[in-house]
Amino acid sequence: MASNSFGTHFRITTWGESHGPAIGVVIDGCPPGIEISAEKIQPALDLRAPGRNPFVTPRKESDQIQILSGVYEGKTTGHPISLLLWNQSAESGAYNHLKELYRPGHSNFTYLTKYGIFDSRGGGRSSGRETACRVAAGAVAQLVLDQFGIQPLAALVDAGGVSSIDPKSQIDWSDKDLVSRIDQSPIFCPNQELEDVIKNRIAEAIADGDSIGGTIEGIVFGMPIGLGDPVYEKLEANLAKAMLSIPATKGFEIGEGFDAAKMSGYDHNDRFIHEKIDGNERIGLETNHAGGTLGGISNGMPLRFTVAVKPTSSVRKLQRTIGLDGVEREFGLAEGAKHDPCIAVRAVPVVKAMTQLVLVDALLANQLISSFVTKGYKETNVCGL
Amino acid sequence: MASNSFGTHFRITTWGESHGPAIGVVIDGCPPGIEISAEKIQPALDLRAPGRNPFVTPRKESDQIQILSGVYEGKTTGHPISLLLWNQSAESGAYNHLKELYRPGHSNFTYLTKYGIFDSRGGGRSSGRETACRVAAGAVAQLVLDQFGIQPLAALVDAGGVSSIDPKSQIDWSDKDLVSRIDQSPIFCPNQELEDVIKNRIAEAIADGDSIGGTIEGIVFGMPIGLGDPVYEKLEANLAKAMLSIPATKGFEIGEGFDAAKMSGYDHNDRFIHEKIDGNERIGLETNHAGGTLGGISNGMPLRFTVAVKPTSSVRKLQRTIGLDGVEREFGLAEGAKHDPCIAVRAVPVVKAMTQLVLVDALLANQLISSFVTKGYKETNVCGL
Amino acid sequence: MASNSFGTHFRITTWGESHGPAIGVVIDGCPPGIEISAEKIQPALDLRAPGRNPFVTPRKESDQIQILSGVYEGKTTGHPISLLLWNQSAESGAYNHLKELYRPGHSNFTYLTKYGIFDSRGGGRSSGRETACRVAAGAVAQLVLDQFGIQPLAALVDAGGVSSIDPKSQIDWSDKDLVSRIDQSPIFCPNQELEDVIKNRIAEAIADGDSIGGTIEGIVFGMPIGLGDPVYEKLEANLAKAMLSIPATKGFEIGEGFDAAKMSGYDHNDRFIHEKIDGNERIGLETNHAGGTLGGISNGMPLRFTVAVKPTSSVRKLQRTIGLDGVEREFGLAEGAKHDPCIAVRAVPVVKAMTQLVLVDALLANQLISSFVTKGYKETNVCGL
Amino acid sequence: MASNSFGTHFRITTWGESHGPAIGVVIDGCPPGIEISAEKIQPALDLRAPGRNPFVTPRKESDQIQILSGVYEGKTTGHPISLLLWNQSAESGAYNHLKELYRPGHSNFTYLTKYGIFDSRGGGRSSGRETACRVAAGAVAQLVLDQFGIQPLAALVDAGGVSSIDPKSQIDWSDKDLVSRIDQSPIFCPNQELEDVIKNRIAEAIADGDSIGGTIEGIVFGMPIGLGDPVYEKLEANLAKAMLSIPATKGFEIGEGFDAAKMSGYDHNDRFIHEKIDGNERIGLETNHAGGTLGGISNGMPLRFTVAVKPTSSVRKLQRTIGLDGVEREFGLAEGAKHDPCIAVRAVPVVKAMTQLVLVDALLANQLISSFVTKGYKETNVCGL
Repeated sequence: MASNSFGTHFRITTWGESHGPAIGVVIDGCPPGIEISAEKIQPALDLRAPGRNPFVTPRKESDQIQILSGVYEGKTTGHPISLLLWNQSAESGAYNHLKELYRPGHSNFTYLTKYGIFDSRGGGRSSGRETACRVAAGAVAQLVLDQFGIQPLAALVDAGGVSSIDPKSQIDWSDKDLVSRIDQSPIFCPNQELEDVIKNRIAEAIADGDSIGGTIEGIVFGMPIGLGDPVYEKLEANLAKAMLSIPATKGFEIGEGFDAAKMSGYDHNDRFIHEKIDGNERIGLETNHAGGTLGGISNGMPLRFTVAVKPTSSVRKLQRTIGLDGVEREFGLAEGAKHDPCIAVRAVPVVKAMTQLVLVDALLANQLISSFVTKGYKETNVCGL
Repeated sequence: MASNSFGTHFRITTWGESHGPAIGVVIDGCPPGIEISAEKIQPALDLRAPGRNPFVTPRKESDQIQILSGVYEGKTTGHPISLLLWNQSAESGAYNHLKELYRPGHSNFTYLTKYGIFDSRGGGRSSGRETACRVAAGAVAQLVLDQFGIQPLAALVDAGGVSSIDPKSQIDWSDKDLVSRIDQSPIFCPNQELEDVIKNRIAEAIADGDSIGGTIEGIVFGMPIGLGDPVYEKLEANLAKAMLSIPATKGFEIGEGFDAAKMSGYDHNDRFIHEKIDGNERIGLETNHAGGTLGGISNGMPLRFTVAVKPTSSVRKLQRTIGLDGVEREFGLAEGAKHDPCIAVRAVPVVKAMTQLVLVDALLANQLISSFVTKGYKETNVCGL
Repeated sequence: MASNSFGTHFRITTWGESHGPAIGVVIDGCPPGIEISAEKIQPALDLRAPGRNPFVTPRKESDQIQILSGVYEGKTTGHPISLLLWNQSAESGAYNHLKELYRPGHSNFTYLTKYGIFDSRGGGRSSGRETACRVAAGAVAQLVLDQFGIQPLAALVDAGGVSSIDPKSQIDWSDKDLVSRIDQSPIFCPNQELEDVIKNRIAEAIADGDSIGGTIEGIVFGMPIGLGDPVYEKLEANLAKAMLSIPATKGFEIGEGFDAAKMSGYDHNDRFIHEKIDGNERIGLETNHAGGTLGGISNGMPLRFTVAVKPTSSVRKLQRTIGLDGVEREFGLAEGAKHDPCIAVRAVPVVKAMTQLVLVDALLANQLISSFVTKGYKETNVCGL
Repeated sequence: MASNSFGTHFRITTWGESHGPAIGVVIDGCPPGIEISAEKIQPALDLRAPGRNPFVTPRKESDQIQILSGVYEGKTTGHPISLLLWNQSAESGAYNHLKELYRPGHSNFTYLTKYGIFDSRGGGRSSGRETACRVAAGAVAQLVLDQFGIQPLAALVDAGGVSSIDPKSQIDWSDKDLVSRIDQSPIFCPNQELEDVIKNRIAEAIADGDSIGGTIEGIVFGMPIGLGDPVYEKLEANLAKAMLSIPATKGFEIGEGFDAAKMSGYDHNDRFIHEKIDGNERIGLETNHAGGTLGGISNGMPLRFTVAVKPTSSVRKLQRTIGLDGVEREFGLAEGAKHDPCIAVRAVPVVKAMTQLVLVDALLANQLISSFVTKGYKETNVCGL
């Protein structure tokens, strides 16, 4: 089944295997007239890139993005934007011994059962490498969101259970320096103290030949009211799908999330209040327990959600498993094999990208921006709109 | 935007308002030749119906299902099945005073801002009443799942935070009497002790004029390997969307969920083992930390997930809010007003229904069942398949 | 496969069999705030209704439309509109003898081969009766189109080959009285002379126990520029699909259609000119060989197209065929059996309805109308659009 | 709006402009395990390529296809297949003078009005060059169809109105040598006599500085019964959409098409008969007036349809038009400018490709082939299917 596309109006289709010649994404439905260039997309990719520091996989990929279509004289045309990344670190020989094993926590068992064939080089299509395409597309989506002042952020708020308190309470999002802090942190951590603890925990896991999971928090500032649709296309429903489509994710919650289940209605309800924004009075909400939606539609408060990421399945510790030949054996990654000790770190830019994609799709679905130039339209319109 | 359909292959479209003349659902894509009748669908609806006991809303609806199409001589034909429920308890006058208020925790603020119009009678389209249609459609889906021995279950495992331990550990799903126990429990509880504690907590909330949230666990036995699709149509991604589309839900986790974020890879990985099922040897998994999928595709283990439900927003306690006229006032439901003190209770059958819908869609997407009678096809086939 | 929906943004889903209890349609995606009532929809249905005059089937159906949802205080709410028609003329006994035969020109052979089951009462789901739902939905679509001054029309321009000239040249569409003339004609004919000739041809066919085909022309006045999308969602591509989805249709052409294949580029090209509309100068086209689109996008000229309809397959003349038991036999409808001697007549309102549906979908896709109340949105918008 | 994808189950997404760096197509949903290579796709592209002979545009493109993903050890994996063609003949300077004009018969007027921006280099996205991607994808689709013995063909049966008889009667499709004859004909003509007449007519048009239209017939041998779905997804409806999505097409008819409108029901109905195929008796049809479907579902007879193609809009003859500056002027292509004198010629392989895409999608929709390896599935299946 066709399952490599995301979004309805700003629709992306990704392709490519971890160790094939290239990976790429086609974006269909991007509004015309937006200034775009490889330079504007590259920084987002650089944040997700492997080999940046000791806390992520040492695989080397320069991940230089190429724009192959949909741009004319530096602007989007409204036609498909094809982005391509050539793979460089494709030593597929290194994976030969993995071909013969059902790898614990990996998809080769289900892929082989389902398709009868599996590109075992670096995980093929199931590799996290596919997420580079999501980040590239998310960066394009952001160019649209920028026109509305919509700003999604994401940060690592826990890993390996180091945090004794609720990870959702780690961040003071009102801090104005937070964005640059997070982007500069090698592990996308919102504060130095937490960063140090998590770094130690990751170093420990590396020493053990093991890996750890983590928790990511996402927030979106500048939310308009009205994004999302009733019943089956609720904003949080599409966000949940987006997050659970990221490899290794195991949970999603919005607002108070699982804590809401323990609260009373009186305490959980956010009260409506009058508030002033830039001198204009409007109706707002006193608290944000709901996390930014009511009835599946954005209510103008920041969207706030958490995502659980499991520990990387590839570990050096020996694990019992079964070969494709049916014989039981033990298996552990070789010393120095390229993998992430805490995949939640590099999932942070991907959580941000999927948020960007959900929001731009909701914006287009709800026609807050137009796919065509209204002025031109009106000038030549027969029926005198 | 069209947002009232769920599913691609077994596609349901629901319609109707809480206090309109009727509500209904059209099922498109149900395979032909399946025995069906109102009697087979009704029991599922009866479980979700209001007014069953003191722990749910006293609203009275007999919810007698009518089948208007898609059935011939007691069997499905492969054409749309239209199901209809006439509304009976539609005293819309009772809602007149609510028309003038932005109700805390409700959708009338976002609906009014988005659409400029809101059917305030009982919440109109945003009412939980819509979920009766999901349950009816789920019961039809189950007729298909039955042919594969796939059995989804759901139960209430916590409410109002009564449970001191992880709700996910409450249930011994290997207990054979559990299904009938859950269905007979007025609050869908898997064991008597927990049921008593939760009942007390609900009674307390009623006495306080307040409400409580709850946690639901879902499990699916008889899972085939191979359901779900890579990248954006992972089984857990669609399940997450399905669950977050249920009114009042705030979180979803699969397998260890948020606890996975605290585990090490060595501990979280489920080991492959040889196992015997009914005398046949096959490859299975020793544990089920993943919750039944690998790479977004079912691995043959039971699907296991948890859903967080917020406390009912309608409470009797007075809350500050704002009128549509912009004037601040206090608001609480009248004594005896019809609402659920813990909406998580009646969400249990809905969680089960959405699971049924996700699974039947995945089955059809993956062509484990055919929409047409292969025998007839082959006999008359030109090209000699 | 789910195949009973049409449209992406203004999506209709129809259900029901010819002789089941009812038929209906759910419209999802209709913009809010539009005045609507059964009275506004009924006239379109009356034009398509059977039993109106000797030139159509004598089946009696009052076809009184019921609106079950999506309307509040006389206006659309943006939520699904459920329309229902109870069947009245459902003498299914009359069809018993047809159950045992593969009927020439009918779908029971392919349905039975594909589904293994066939509701033979009046053709079940494959009956033309389903088109009543399209007409009802088209009437709702027109309420939206009215706000843009877009007016689709359709007329019967040939039947049984009576016309010696190109049917496309029959109509002087500039005639202001044409709309009421067509609606008043029992066979939707644009002029009296043609009407008389076709009536005679139909009477002849009835006398022969035979049937005839016909040609329908569609035109749309008030077309804006910009409807339709490049490559695979060209306006004429969606129009072609819409027309070929009507039972009994065999061809579609836009503009010069098949005659364009015989023309030279110099002659076929429509020249751009300056024109004045209501005092405003704009760029228009001198001729309309293209039929109203360029590159799949409307160019502001009237949309103009033709649809071929085959002769009704049900005839009284004896025809050789095969029974489900494999035995050859002869078959002809009984004297007085209810069928249309020229189904093209009652296809005229359906061609108009499908045009309405294609256009409203294109309008919404292209965001010329908004699904939400911009004013309300802007007032409460966080990001200060 | 996203409009660059075709198909639901075997979904293609094309991208790229006529004079951008490259064009390409992503195929999502191709079944796994099919042997594939660039060599197997290239021949189809070579037939459509420009510059092959004097009857098509002299533009030079080697059109060497590159496969970038979805293939492992020479077989499809079930994951997206990315195909890429680098553009070579991209002298965009040649188009500078066209930037300033609304070109008669071209899409720059509607594109500019709709998008406010237009890649004028060779028509950008609206160029026929996009169809190379359709042909490449069609060749991949054919690898699937081959497994079912389904063989679509297409041929040019008229151009510039040279044919005095109905083009549909030109071809004796029972001739076994026809396939190679058509492929060897520089203009895809089924017989030498017709080829000579059309060649002369094309030469005439070239001499005149003009262009001509043409008519294409398509046929599909080896059709199974059961492809296509009732109501809105009829096989002919999707075929019509596919054909009208090809640039320059203006009409589609199936079976007798517009001639059916002139026939009587008795004459048009195809009688059911017993027939023997390879020694097996089955129910067949005596004639094929319907063109291969009944009720929108294939009936086992060859699918037969006709497509009208308008004359190329680009001509050397001077034509009056308007500049973007509003000034009227005359315009004709320069002597030697690269364009097709009869675009219908190069549309023939595109008609075939779109037929291949419609059929493979219908096959997958109807689950005649499985997206996964049933054997593997069954072996490991929990529920003992």
